[in-house]
Amino acid sequence: MMMRAEIIAIGTELLLGQIVNTNAQFLSEQLAALGIPVYYHSVVGDNPERLKKQIEISAERSSLLIFTGGLGPTKDDLTKETLAEFVNRKLVLDEAAMNSITQFFSERNVTMTENNKRQAIVLEGSHVLHNETGLAPGMAFQEDETLYMLLPGPPKELRPMFIHFGIPYLSTFLPEKKVVHSKVMRFCGIGESALETELLDLIDQQTSPTIAPLAKDGEVTLRLTSYAKSVSEAEQEMEELVAEIQSRVGPFLYGWNEESLEQVAVNKLQVKGYTVAFAESCTGGLLSSFITRAEGASKVFQGSVVCYSNEIKNRQLNVPQIVLDKEGAVSEKTASIMAQEIRKLYHSDVGISITGVAGPTTQEDKPIGLVFVGFALPDRTFVKELRLGGQRDSIQIRAAKQALYTLIRELDSEQ
Amino acid sequence: MMMRAEIIAIGTELLLGQIVNTNAQFLSEQLAALGIPVYYHSVVGDNPERLKKQIEISAERSSLLIFTGGLGPTKDDLTKETLAEFVNRKLVLDEAAMNSITQFFSERNVTMTENNKRQAIVLEGSHVLHNETGLAPGMAFQEDETLYMLLPGPPKELRPMFIHFGIPYLSTFLPEKKVVHSKVMRFCGIGESALETELLDLIDQQTSPTIAPLAKDGEVTLRLTSYAKSVSEAEQEMEELVAEIQSRVGPFLYGWNEESLEQVAVNKLQVKGYTVAFAESCTGGLLSSFITRAEGASKVFQGSVVCYSNEIKNRQLNVPQIVLDKEGAVSEKTASIMAQEIRKLYHSDVGISITGVAGPTTQEDKPIGLVFVGFALPDRTFVKELRLGGQRDSIQIRAAKQALYTLIRELDSEQ
Repeated sequence: MMMRAEIIAIGTELLLGQIVNTNAQFLSEQLAALGIPVYYHSVVGDNPERLKKQIEISAERSSLLIFTGGLGPTKDDLTKETLAEFVNRKLVLDEAAMNSITQFFSERNVTMTENNKRQAIVLEGSHVLHNETGLAPGMAFQEDETLYMLLPGPPKELRPMFIHFGIPYLSTFLPEKKVVHSKVMRFCGIGESALETELLDLIDQQTSPTIAPLAKDGEVTLRLTSYAKSVSEAEQEMEELVAEIQSRVGPFLYGWNEESLEQVAVNKLQVKGYTVAFAESCTGGLLSSFITRAEGASKVFQGSVVCYSNEIKNRQLNVPQIVLDKEGAVSEKTASIMAQEIRKLYHSDVGISITGVAGPTTQEDKPIGLVFVGFALPDRTFVKELRLGGQRDSIQIRAAKQALYTLIRELDSEQ
Repeated sequence: MMMRAEIIAIGTELLLGQIVNTNAQFLSEQLAALGIPVYYHSVVGDNPERLKKQIEISAERSSLLIFTGGLGPTKDDLTKETLAEFVNRKLVLDEAAMNSITQFFSERNVTMTENNKRQAIVLEGSHVLHNETGLAPGMAFQEDETLYMLLPGPPKELRPMFIHFGIPYLSTFLPEKKVVHSKVMRFCGIGESALETELLDLIDQQTSPTIAPLAKDGEVTLRLTSYAKSVSEAEQEMEELVAEIQSRVGPFLYGWNEESLEQVAVNKLQVKGYTVAFAESCTGGLLSSFITRAEGASKVFQGSVVCYSNEIKNRQLNVPQIVLDKEGAVSEKTASIMAQEIRKLYHSDVGISITGVAGPTTQEDKPIGLVFVGFALPDRTFVKELRLGGQRDSIQIRAAKQALYTLIRELDSEQ
C-alpha cells in the first residue's frame, strides 16, 4: 500500500496563534524517515462542522490521516466524536485506559472529575496507543483503504506515543523494507555558518547519505541519513563521510545521536572518578539544572552555590571585597577564585564558575555577552573568556553549554 | 465584508519537517488582533497541481487567502504562476521591484543571476507590498469577493511586510472598527480540568467575551477575548465575567496577561522589602534559574545552595546526619531545616527549600512525584507536601512553580 500522509491538527489555540504547530514538524520528520511522503498539513479549530468538512477533504486526497489534538477531557475536545460519526463507528470505553486514569488520580489522592472519564473513550475496533506520559490514549484503525491515527496534542505525550506505538503500527503497512538510518553528530563551540562553510562541498554533493545541519542555542548538529537495504549497509555508506567530517571539524564534535553535553560530561567525570561543583553567578543555576538532567548526575555532582549577589560571592566564596571593587564581579580574577573556592568548599575534584553580563543591561561598564568561565582542577586553574551574542536567556544557555563543552575537552586532554 | 481567513503555506521543507510553520502563528496572532477570524491553516508542497487543488478548496471556504512562501527566484517557487492561472490574471514585471533587485546586486558588486528577475514579476492589477528586508515583493488583490495576499516565506521578510503594508491594506476592507481586546488570567495550583469543571457553565454560555483555557507545565491560563467598539467597552464587558471567575477560583489566580510567576514573586518581595534565598535538591537549580529571569531579581535574590548530595545537605545546610538517616533527605523535617538554614546562611528574610523524588527512579522507598517545599519566614516556618505527576522534567518544573506560587500566596496573606 502506497501511503500519502496528511497531518490534521485540531485546536483553536493554533488558529489564534497562541501556539506553534510543532507536532506537524515532528511527525513530518518521522514520516520522512519511514519513507512515507506527507502531502498536506491542515489545521482546523475546535469546531465539529468545520472539522467534519476537513475530514471529508482529507480522506479524499490522502490515505493516511494523522490527527493531533482534541483528545483531552474538556468540552472543546471533539476529535473522537466527529471522526466516529464520519467513519460510522461507535465510541466505547477502553478498560485499560480507564484503569490508568483511575490509578493516576488515586495515587495522587485527588478526586477525579467526571470529564476525565471521556479520555478513556475510543473508537470501536481501533488499535489503542498507550499514553506513557499522560492520560488520553491514542488510537489507529483502517477503514476503506484509509488509515486513521489519533494522537494527543501535547508534544510530550504525542512524541513518545508515536515513536513507541505509532511507528510499529504503521510499519505493518509498509512495502518491502528499506531501512532509513540516521546518525547525528553533535558540535559545540562552532557556529552553524562556520561549520557549514567548512563542509560546503560535502553538503553540495550530498545524495545518500544526506547531510542536514541544525542549529540551536550554542550547539550545532549534523544529521546524516542513509536509505539502504540494512543498517550495516547504511553504516558502511556513512563511514567515509563521517571520517571526512571529523578530519575537518573534529575538535568541535562532542557527542553522537541523542547524547547531550551534560550526559557526555557526566560520563567522562564518572570514568575519571571525579566529582564536580559549580559556582554560578549570571547563569543563576542553569548549569546546575542542566547537569541534573543527565543520568548518573548524582554520582558526580555535589552541588552548587548560586552567588547572585556580590555579598554571597564575598561571604560564601571568599572573593575579597577588594577584588570585587577593583576588578569587578565580572572578571577573570573573580571567576578564578570562585572556581577554586567552590572546589574547596564542596570537597569536589573539579570546581567550575561562571560570572558574566547576561543583560539586558551592561554591568560594571562591561559589555553584554562578556562571560568568564573558571575551571579549578586538582593540579591547575584556568579561566576562559567568552563573548556571546543574543538575548539574556540565550547568553545564559550558551555560557552554561560552553562550560560543559570546555570541561569535556579538558577531561579528554587528560587521558 | 465579513472576512474568514485561511493561511496557506507553500513549501516542501515544511512537509519534510525541516522547518516549523511559525509564519502561520505570527499571522494568526496578527489577524486575531484585527478581529479577523482564522478558520484554517494549510500547508502544501512545491507542487503546482496540489497547490491548485488547495486553492480551489480554500477559495470555496474562506474569503481571505494569505499565501506564504514560493515567491523566491528558484525553480520550485510556483505560487504566483499557479495563482495567476487560477484567477486568470497575467503576470507582469513590476518596475519598482526590478529596480530594487538590480540596485541590490550592483551595490554588492555581485552579478545578478537571471532567475532573480522572476522575483520582480507580479500578478497584474495587484497592490504590490514592498519588501524591506529581502528581494521578492508581496502582493494583494481582490477577485470575486475574495481577497488574496501573497507574502514571502522567510519570517524576517514576511513580518515587517505584513505589519507595514499588509495590515494597512486589509484595514481598508474592515467594517466599522471593532476592537479585539484580550485579557489573560494566570492560575497555578489547579489543574486544567479542575479549573474547567468550576467554570463549566460560563464556558458553555460564552459568546463575547469568549473564554479559552490553556494548560502548560504547572500552570493554566484563561484567555478572555471581547469584540467591542472600544477598549473601554470591552473592559466593561469583561468586568462581570472576571468577577465571577475570581469568586470561584480566585485563590489560584496569581497574575494577569504576560506576568510570570517569578515576576509576580519578585515584585511582591520588593514591595515587602524582603530578600530571598533557596536551597534546592531535586530541582537542581531550576528555581534559581527561574527567578533570575525576572526583572529586578538582583534586588531580592541573594543566591542559592544546590545541595544535590546528602553530604552537602549535611555540611553546608546543617541537616543532621540522623535526620537524613532516619527521616530521609526527602522528608518534611529535612525541608524545614534546609529552609531555615539557607535563610540564616545567606542572611535573607525568606528561605525556600525543595527536596523530593523527581524520578526516574524512586528514592528512599518514596514515590516519584513526592516533593516537600519548605518556607522559612522571619516569624514562621512551614512545609508544603506535593504529589506531582509527569516525567522528571515536568516534576521539577511543577515543584519550582509551586514554590513560587506558595510564596506569592504567603506574601499576600501577610498584608
